[in-house]
Formats: sequence, C-alpha cells, structure tokens
Amino acid sequence: MAINYQGLPPLAPVPGIGWGVASAGIKTPGRRDLAVMAIDEGATVAGVFTRNAFCAAPVQVCRRHLSKDTPRYLVVNTGNANAGTGEQGLADALDVCATLAAAAGCRPEQVLPFSTGVIGEYLPMGKLRPAIATAQAAVKAGWEEAAEAIMTTDTVAKGDSVQLSIDGRPVTITGIAKGAGMIRPDMATMLAFVATDARIEASLLQQLLNEMVTDSFNSITVDGDTSTNDSLILVATGYSGVEPAPGSEDLDTLRTALRQLCIRLAQLIIRDAEGVSKFITICVEGGIDEDECRQVAFTVAHSPLVKTAFFASDPNWGRILATVGRAGIVDLELDRIDIDLDEVRIVSAGDRDRDYTEQRGQMVMDRDEITVRIALGRGEAEHTIWTSDLSLDYVRINAEYRT
Amino acid sequence: MAINYQGLPPLAPVPGIGWGVASAGIKTPGRRDLAVMAIDEGATVAGVFTRNAFCAAPVQVCRRHLSKDTPRYLVVNTGNANAGTGEQGLADALDVCATLAAAAGCRPEQVLPFSTGVIGEYLPMGKLRPAIATAQAAVKAGWEEAAEAIMTTDTVAKGDSVQLSIDGRPVTITGIAKGAGMIRPDMATMLAFVATDARIEASLLQQLLNEMVTDSFNSITVDGDTSTNDSLILVATGYSGVEPAPGSEDLDTLRTALRQLCIRLAQLIIRDAEGVSKFITICVEGGIDEDECRQVAFTVAHSPLVKTAFFASDPNWGRILATVGRAGIVDLELDRIDIDLDEVRIVSAGDRDRDYTEQRGQMVMDRDEITVRIALGRGEAEHTIWTSDLSLDYVRINAEYRT
Repeated sequence: MAINYQGLPPLAPVPGIGWGVASAGIKTPGRRDLAVMAIDEGATVAGVFTRNAFCAAPVQVCRRHLSKDTPRYLVVNTGNANAGTGEQGLADALDVCATLAAAAGCRPEQVLPFSTGVIGEYLPMGKLRPAIATAQAAVKAGWEEAAEAIMTTDTVAKGDSVQLSIDGRPVTITGIAKGAGMIRPDMATMLAFVATDARIEASLLQQLLNEMVTDSFNSITVDGDTSTNDSLILVATGYSGVEPAPGSEDLDTLRTALRQLCIRLAQLIIRDAEGVSKFITICVEGGIDEDECRQVAFTVAHSPLVKTAFFASDPNWGRILATVGRAGIVDLELDRIDIDLDEVRIVSAGDRDRDYTEQRGQMVMDRDEITVRIALGRGEAEHTIWTSDLSLDYVRINAEYRT
Repeated sequence: MAINYQGLPPLAPVPGIGWGVASAGIKTPGRRDLAVMAIDEGATVAGVFTRNAFCAAPVQVCRRHLSKDTPRYLVVNTGNANAGTGEQGLADALDVCATLAAAAGCRPEQVLPFSTGVIGEYLPMGKLRPAIATAQAAVKAGWEEAAEAIMTTDTVAKGDSVQLSIDGRPVTITGIAKGAGMIRPDMATMLAFVATDARIEASLLQQLLNEMVTDSFNSITVDGDTSTNDSLILVATGYSGVEPAPGSEDLDTLRTALRQLCIRLAQLIIRDAEGVSKFITICVEGGIDEDECRQVAFTVAHSPLVKTAFFASDPNWGRILATVGRAGIVDLELDRIDIDLDEVRIVSAGDRDRDYTEQRGQMVMDRDEITVRIALGRGEAEHTIWTSDLSLDYVRINAEYRT
C-alpha cells in the first residue's frame, strides 16, 4: 500500500506532446505495457541516465541518439529491461527505434527507447513490433494512460502536473514516473518523463535537468540498488510562447516549479516503494559540505537495522547513532551530534536527551511519515533525502519477483 | 538455524588462561551472561577494535588500558552494549574494571571490559558487581562455558581450537566468538577472544593480529552495519615455551594457523547470521588491487536484491551483474566480466553464458552453501568474503530484537 497516496491528480496536457499506449503482452496478456510519446517538431529534449557501469542497451541507444539528433518519439516497454543482453540487446533496441520510425515517418535516430522489467532476457520482438505500430497510430491518449502503462512492481500510477504564470502567460509542466524497487538512482530514477510547453534552448534545458536531479531523483533510495535502466527525460515544446532568458527571474520561477515537481515525483516512488510501511525523510544538517550530509543520510537510509526498526515502529535510536558513526566521516565528534525524530529530540550532544522517554519516541514511530533530523555540528551544509522501511513484504516481493 | 554447523568442537585449554562465568541476570534471570578471562602474568595481549566513530564506552576503556598496562583480566557482559551512554557509560565501564580488580587483587588498568547487547541503556551495575566477583572466584571453567556466556542473538556457541607442532613442541590456539547481526566488522567482529600458549612479543603479536583480521573478521558481513562494540583480543601466554623468531618459518606456521582459525571463527558468525538460510562465499578476482576486489565483493554482499534472490534460491544473475556495475569501480569493462555460481558459469564476457540454462542455475541456488566467483579481467588481485542471505527471518528478528 502506498503511503499517503492521494490518487493520480489530473495531469494537464502539454501542447506539443501526445501519448499512445498498446498491449504487447510481454508479461501479462492484455495489459497495456507499451507507451509511445510523440513530440512535435521544434521541441528540445534533455536526458540523464544511470551511472551503473553496465547500463542497459536502451540507455546506450538513448545516449547515442540524443547526441546525434533531436528526438521526435520516445517508446517505453515494461516487463523486460533489455539489460545484460549484449549485442543482441543492442540490436533489439535499435530494431525498436527502426520499427517506430518506419510507422511514424521519422529517422530511427529521432527515437529514444526505454525498457524496464526483468534483467537478462531478450526483448520479445515479435510481440513488440506490432504493438509499437498500434501505439504510434493511437497517439492521443493522456498522460494518465501512459503513467499506468509504464508501471512494473508499482502499485499506483505516479504523475503530477503544475500550471504557473510566467510573464502573464500560462505555462504547464507535467511529469510521470515509475519505480518501486532497485531504487537508488545515480543520475535519475528508473523511468521518469517530464514535459513543459515553455521554450528552452537545448543546452540550458540539459543544465536545468542536471541541477534538479540532485535534489529530487538522486535523493531517494529504497534498497541502495542502482538500476541499469534509470532514465529521466525532460522535454520543452515551446508551445506556450514563453521563453525565459538565462539568468532571468522567469527562469528561476520555472526552475523552482520543475524542481518541486521532480521532488514530488521522486517522493511518489518512495511512497510506493516495495513493501513500504513508512515514508521516511532524512535531513542531515550542520555538515562541512553537502557531500558529507548526503553520505550520512544514505548510510542511515541503507542500514537494514535502521530500516527494520522503522518497520517495527521501534524508537531504536541506538541503531541510528551507530549508523551515523560508521558513515565514514572523518573527525566526526560524537558530542556535537543531535538527533530528532519529528518534534522529539532523542540525542543531545551524542547522549540520550534528558527529556527523552520511550513513550515520546514511540508516539513518533507509530506515524507513517517520519522525519529524522541529524545535526552534525560541523558546518552549515545540509541535504535531505527520502527512503522507505525494510519490511517482511519487501523480502517477500523480491524473493518472488524476477527483476 | 545455523548453516552446516557441526557443533562446538572440543576446545583445548590454553595453559595460562582460565575462564569464570556467572549469571548477572541482565536480560534473562538465571542465564550465565557474564564471563571473566584470567590471564597469567607474563602473557602478551593484542587487540583490534571497531572503527565506528561512536565506539562504545568499554571499547574506549580497552584502548586506554591496553596502552597503559598489560591485561590480567578480561570481563564480558551480554545483554547491554554500554554504547551511546555518554559519561555515565564510561564511569560504569571503569567501575566494572575496578570491581574485578578489587576481587582479583590487580590494578584496574589490568582489566579490559567488553559489553554486547542493547545500545543506549546504562549497565545495571547493581546486578553486575556481585556477578563479577562470583565469576572471578569461579575461574576454572573451560572455553565452552565462555563461548555460551557471550552469546546474544547467536543461536549456537562458536569456537575452534587447533594444536600444532612447532620446532617439535606442541602449541595450542583456541578462540571463541559471538555475533549474528549488526555484523560488518571494521577492524574485528562483535567479540572474539583467541589465545595461544606460544610466546610472542607484544608488538609482534599486535602485528600478527592486524594482518589476520583483514582476511578473517574484516571479510564477513551480515547486514553492513558496523557495530559500536567490535573487539578482537589475542593473548599469547608463552607456556608452551615456543617462541618463533620474527621472519622464521616457525612464525609463518603459527601465523597460518592463527589466520585459519580466525577465518573459521568468522565463518561461524556467518553460518549463524540472523535469519540465515544460505552461506555465501563471494570471491572477486582479476582486480587491479585487493581494495577494488573488496569493494565489489561487499557491494554484492550488501545488495538487498542479491540477498533476497539467494533467500529465494532464484538464479537471478541480472541482479548480481547490476550490483557489480554500481560498485563504483572506475573504467570497469562489461565485456571482460565472467561470473560463476559454484561450477556453473552464468556470465561470460558480460553476456549470459551460451551454455547457461535456468535449470543449471537453479541446481546451484538450491544449495545452502554457494560460491559466487566474479572475475573482473583487469589485473591479478583477488579477495574473498563471506555473507548470508536476506530472509523473512532477518526482518522478523530485527523488527523484534532491540539492539
């Protein structure tokens, strides 16, 4: 059950963007498991991808095509990641592009392919080719259908939309994402697609994307396992006629809105993490730099003992303190550390807080959203990440599902 | 259930070493939860301790006393780690030493204290003080009783013993260990005590210990969580009359025997890891240096997705490959990677091996001891570590047990 999931909000169409979905029957007959995004001519596209050394075939093709041409189509299949598939996998990913290009009348290099699902099996091209043509012919569906088509172990569809006014004119940003396990993005999460009708020059768009990914998709973790397929794409169609100048206040407005939308999408992935029973925010402050704050935050977020304590609603602050101590921070001083769980201080100056009682700790731990605040007392930097607990269901899901 | 645990073998007494055990009733009334080791005068003692920045009070006292004096007594309590306990914890650890010193007629600085159990609670000194005196008065018990007295979530007592002949004279090495969770020693495991009746000068003894810990206790992991209390002590009493000279073949013989005994003790901890259903050996070879082999091995050993696949007996080689890819090794080349599960090659040159079948993978994964061999194809270095799977029981145990 996703934590405090409010249902998919209305996803505003982005002029210049269309979606088509179809069923290729990759894992489940009849399920709509294939989505095609059509992008009007004149749009700019930016992407960030997994830093896993063994990135999947579609990621390799995406990088190559993005460097050569301006994308007109994205195509996403679920149920098969086309990762660990060698030369055959690369050929299949190119075949996917060629199939869509033939149906749509564009160049294969104008297609970006995305795959998510099981690793180490070849794409079922016989099923995919006709479904690609069907999806392309059906381009008219909304973002909602696409959000559902790209799900794998996700239990809920994930998307968000914002409309803002820039220079008196309306601008829309809409995005969707998928991912629930093998989530510790190192560049971007499994799959996320965001589009706006602002006009943004390609290199500026890429720069915006690089900036926002650090605080959003690169600040979440379920299990520490960085996928081979992480991809995040940002499209700017320009249809709103709004083109914020570099360095302008308007660009700041747009940047903030994009960043917040990406944070909400990333948080949705944690709310729907495999086996999740708690949505945990970890805020590390008082660090010398952001890097060490991130390092402490992720060490705590990956600790099986901290994660099982959250699952058990056990205010086991000793496990949190022990994990901060093994985070590899040089010259960390215990007697400068403060730790809070929501409004309850548990550790003051490295020791159990005088006013802390088990009862007050329990009161916070019983909540399904908890903020852990760790103050290092070394500097001014801070960083916040989001994670889930480690539950019996996480183990059950991953002992049964073949990723 | 410990994996292929053969029962505690006979533990040969080490002349010059005695143990006394007693019940302090820290967690369970009547359970023998306190052990005292008496060391005859003339012995040398070496120790290695956790590198967790927040080491527990007894670890701080051990370090201080070892630098000042030659230990005559060790005292170990379970049920309470005396960690995260600030000034009071330090005073309590010193009180433990003073109590034992008064009973035994030695200096407090000649006592090393060890604690294991729950973090963040003060030692119940009222219960401990009389039990310390009782244990000291009872010094005569064997290593077997001590091995049982130091258990916490351990399901079996852990110890081993070897007798070898050096220069025609018999030399004994005996050791015991405890630990099942919060195991990713960064210097030594939770608690292990090893003694020999060889005579070894103190600085050489410390050097031997530092060497052997890398390949033994520092090469195991259950959950990646480095404890605040890890301690490994090596005592050389000299009673055998054998004193191998530095650089001699005799010293090599002793070093090898010590190293092997420590590896077996460390493996016993993994065989009895919390919730363990598989004993996994991860051997990474073909690395540029040992560090990168360790880095890959531990990344695989800590991956929740790899660990749950082992629990499920699922030959999910894609998860292993994906984890190797995120291990942070610079310029790792996919097409040089080979991976074997026992005698079955699963990945050749970065791709699924031609002869691999799901059936052959399943055959290996159904075993309760499995070796994963990862060849990086970059150099000559290699390193082996041992780990356990991530089971439903691991989560149950840690959602219930307050460490």
